[in-house]
Amino acid sequence: MTEALATTARLLITCPDRPGIVAAVTGFLYAHGANINTLDQHTTDPEGGTFFMRLEFQTPHLDLSRPALEHAFAEVVAERFAMDWRIAYAADRKKTAVLVSRHEHGLMDLLWRWVRGELYTDISMVISNHPDWREAVESFGVPFHHIPVDSASKEEAEQQMLELLDGQADLVILARYMQILSPDFVAAFPQRIINIHHSFLPAFAGADPYRQAAERGVKLIGATAHYVTAELDAGPIIEQDVIRVSHRHTTADLKALGRDIERQVLSRAVKWHLEDKIIPFANQTVVFT
Amino acid sequence: MTEALATTARLLITCPDRPGIVAAVTGFLYAHGANINTLDQHTTDPEGGTFFMRLEFQTPHLDLSRPALEHAFAEVVAERFAMDWRIAYAADRKKTAVLVSRHEHGLMDLLWRWVRGELYTDISMVISNHPDWREAVESFGVPFHHIPVDSASKEEAEQQMLELLDGQADLVILARYMQILSPDFVAAFPQRIINIHHSFLPAFAGADPYRQAAERGVKLIGATAHYVTAELDAGPIIEQDVIRVSHRHTTADLKALGRDIERQVLSRAVKWHLEDKIIPFANQTVVFT
Amino acid sequence: MTEALATTARLLITCPDRPGIVAAVTGFLYAHGANINTLDQHTTDPEGGTFFMRLEFQTPHLDLSRPALEHAFAEVVAERFAMDWRIAYAADRKKTAVLVSRHEHGLMDLLWRWVRGELYTDISMVISNHPDWREAVESFGVPFHHIPVDSASKEEAEQQMLELLDGQADLVILARYMQILSPDFVAAFPQRIINIHHSFLPAFAGADPYRQAAERGVKLIGATAHYVTAELDAGPIIEQDVIRVSHRHTTADLKALGRDIERQVLSRAVKWHLEDKIIPFANQTVVFT
Amino acid sequence: MTEALATTARLLITCPDRPGIVAAVTGFLYAHGANINTLDQHTTDPEGGTFFMRLEFQTPHLDLSRPALEHAFAEVVAERFAMDWRIAYAADRKKTAVLVSRHEHGLMDLLWRWVRGELYTDISMVISNHPDWREAVESFGVPFHHIPVDSASKEEAEQQMLELLDGQADLVILARYMQILSPDFVAAFPQRIINIHHSFLPAFAGADPYRQAAERGVKLIGATAHYVTAELDAGPIIEQDVIRVSHRHTTADLKALGRDIERQVLSRAVKWHLEDKIIPFANQTVVFT
Repeated sequence: MTEALATTARLLITCPDRPGIVAAVTGFLYAHGANINTLDQHTTDPEGGTFFMRLEFQTPHLDLSRPALEHAFAEVVAERFAMDWRIAYAADRKKTAVLVSRHEHGLMDLLWRWVRGELYTDISMVISNHPDWREAVESFGVPFHHIPVDSASKEEAEQQMLELLDGQADLVILARYMQILSPDFVAAFPQRIINIHHSFLPAFAGADPYRQAAERGVKLIGATAHYVTAELDAGPIIEQDVIRVSHRHTTADLKALGRDIERQVLSRAVKWHLEDKIIPFANQTVVFT
Repeated sequence: MTEALATTARLLITCPDRPGIVAAVTGFLYAHGANINTLDQHTTDPEGGTFFMRLEFQTPHLDLSRPALEHAFAEVVAERFAMDWRIAYAADRKKTAVLVSRHEHGLMDLLWRWVRGELYTDISMVISNHPDWREAVESFGVPFHHIPVDSASKEEAEQQMLELLDGQADLVILARYMQILSPDFVAAFPQRIINIHHSFLPAFAGADPYRQAAERGVKLIGATAHYVTAELDAGPIIEQDVIRVSHRHTTADLKALGRDIERQVLSRAVKWHLEDKIIPFANQTVVFT
Repeated sequence: MTEALATTARLLITCPDRPGIVAAVTGFLYAHGANINTLDQHTTDPEGGTFFMRLEFQTPHLDLSRPALEHAFAEVVAERFAMDWRIAYAADRKKTAVLVSRHEHGLMDLLWRWVRGELYTDISMVISNHPDWREAVESFGVPFHHIPVDSASKEEAEQQMLELLDGQADLVILARYMQILSPDFVAAFPQRIINIHHSFLPAFAGADPYRQAAERGVKLIGATAHYVTAELDAGPIIEQDVIRVSHRHTTADLKALGRDIERQVLSRAVKWHLEDKIIPFANQTVVFT
Repeated sequence: MTEALATTARLLITCPDRPGIVAAVTGFLYAHGANINTLDQHTTDPEGGTFFMRLEFQTPHLDLSRPALEHAFAEVVAERFAMDWRIAYAADRKKTAVLVSRHEHGLMDLLWRWVRGELYTDISMVISNHPDWREAVESFGVPFHHIPVDSASKEEAEQQMLELLDGQADLVILARYMQILSPDFVAAFPQRIINIHHSFLPAFAGADPYRQAAERGVKLIGATAHYVTAELDAGPIIEQDVIRVSHRHTTADLKALGRDIERQVLSRAVKWHLEDKIIPFANQTVVFT
């Protein structure tokens, strides 16, 4: 970790928009010795809309401890503006678990970026309903758990996973995990499960989107990273991208081209989540890139 | 028209794939003095699939008249391979009619490209259910017909349009024409009506796709040009494109950004149609660009 | 003009970065009744770098007149932080002049967007060294001046243009104006001349970039909008975009494809300039889109 | 290898364009039992230009052995049209060597795609002037050779490499190999060395292109895969791509974003080379994708 990262804090705010918010927040931080590096804000409507803000600041010259700063912020600023807020410290590395089935390209891309230092996280484990990727995963020094799932064992399998993940997953990544998670499982990780779906949602939700795309004869195929909610493929979209295709491409070609898009879309979404750049709102996301 | 275009012919073929097609077609053309400029071919499967071919050739040294050439081709080649085929001569300029409602950006872009010589066609008329664009259209020397439509008058309006279009429209372009055409009207112009839909189909079919896109929180918006069939927004896709958007964009912003994509997607599809580069097949298109 | 635009002001700031700037600026505006809609900031380096900020705020509830507000800001905030700053009021519509030679696609696209209300400016005149586009320009109600240029008359022609432009051009757009402007002319409009160059700069600066691109065999062609400086094609870049090409495209094809990219890149750059979203810095631009 | 690939042959032709080429080639192949899967052709000018063709055909029903077929083609067709031609058999897997320096992302991406079966080749070795990637490379079962290079040892190092590569490299990939190869070395692998350059050539040739890009303030950065010739970064371009950047991106950010573009551009170029889809011509390439 660079020195800068060791002392970086991120303040994320959602509140009703009204005059004076930016002045109050930046004035508070300045008064307590925080040095703001970046500030992004967004409002759905200056009159009666919702206001979002993300600040990244340096902590070395703070005149308060972390808890005291948070306590003061709550009392002096947050309450006055009815803020939903949190401060994340970059030094508190998030724990990430990856779930995968047979298609490993997303998983391997994440592991590869992680060892290169592109993703600042601790990958605590990989869980799969297939045994295939044990050796590949363990070669990165990451624990691998094989938890088979069939219709009879599904509830038990989820229970096993929840036990493994307990305290070990600030973020759960579904890198082509092809089992549908129960609403209870999803509820255990609110806005903390990221799925990569291999289509440009809302087109081709559900099974086998590349085959659907080939049948519909679309001229672009895409991928979508989104937070998982109880409704399949319907959660807040974080990132999407597409690539041009033509009549020359078979379903197999679409899958091969799509893998590259999936890898990039997933890795961007994960990186933004780890860097606290995403604020989910209603069924959408504000992404301060 | 350049001299080359005056003597350009295009042969389009669809047939069951089997060995010897290319040799038979090119051998026939060579034997009769046709000089092939471009040849594109595609097969859905070399074993039992469907074969598509487009040849562009020069006619000055043909040893047969056009009718004789076509007759000979039918007898010598087409019958043997059970071909669905046609020859289009570039000099036979296609007639195009444009239908539009309140949003004129697609219409104006087509007219502007047309006067610049980018679209090789005769624009025979513009029909609108609103009177707004008469002056703009007539300034291009193109006849404008205002045919109002309401639920009571719809059948009569379509009848009026059919009379106007009779013999005047090898191609009908729906440049944001917001009335749904009856199956009978559509059947009068099989694979000859191109619609621009302001979304990345099959996402956001139907009304108000930019609002739908804003509500779903997608990170890219798009446009789709397709042949019109009896089922709304479900015909063979010719061309699609997208542009990146974010939480910062309101529905109004999406509309403004989308206009540029719509203009480009529609003009490409129209140009390809006019140049006989598209072969519809099942509910898809083979586009030899 | 919408009511919101009538009361919109934009504050642009460049200064050495140090703690407290955002708090001071937003605190000042809040104290005087300005309601901030959007705030963007950027720093080249929090330690000793240069800081940039753009705020858009509403003026209806200001407790000071415009001059008094500006005076107070200078005294209370700007001096303390050694700011280079300006406030632009959206209601003060900028005057724009367009210079063009033989290729009119950029000019026509600007005029077309302008009449649609997409570009909030007064187009005061079009100047061309060719007489060709007089009728097209005048049909938009815009004055057209034909000022021929040859090597002997160049100085005199520029003098004529400067007289016409005097007080009539907050922005000068070179929409494919193929004469090289003298350093004196350029100096009369610092950071107020936007040129569209038909390549992806710094590749293919100078004459005939599409021919250069065809000869080099590049797989993408592009366009670049930049502020004009004394050095040809070397000023601060505002916007760029590209489109994919292949061996199939002749130089003529590249020109046709390039026109669409040029139109979009130029119109984006002009729109951003008119909305005070660009801060030039050294030989670069900060663009707060 | 799929059964289809085992029996796939590819015929590549370059010759002066004149009537009858396609008929002669396809007639010849049909007569000898070759079943054509795909046919692509291109001409720089139907009158006196250069003609390019690529055919992919199936060999199971050939009535001649490979040598006899080639002999017959030379006599019956190639000589008549003054063709430069070759037939490649997919079953004859090409041997590939990769050269790399400190930046391993291109190398690792190639190895990863290779083990997945995306690149149909035998990777015979990796050579590096640094020892760093030995373990990573050997874990893929690929031999690794460390050949240090400094100004004094350069000639000797190239000699060592040539000995290692002798008979082992139908293709040499420079995956961020930062030593300039001598004209003699390059001449040993005509049109068989592919380099990935980390800019959109011809912009930012030479050293440190991301720093150059940051200094010039471009709004897109790119990567270029090209065949290596004696002149640095000036050989025929195979593939290019770009990604959007802004003032927010430091040189370090450009490098991180650029890595993804480099990986994709390089892997596409390598795949096309391995599938005999590229015909170099003058200083350009015809790529039949």
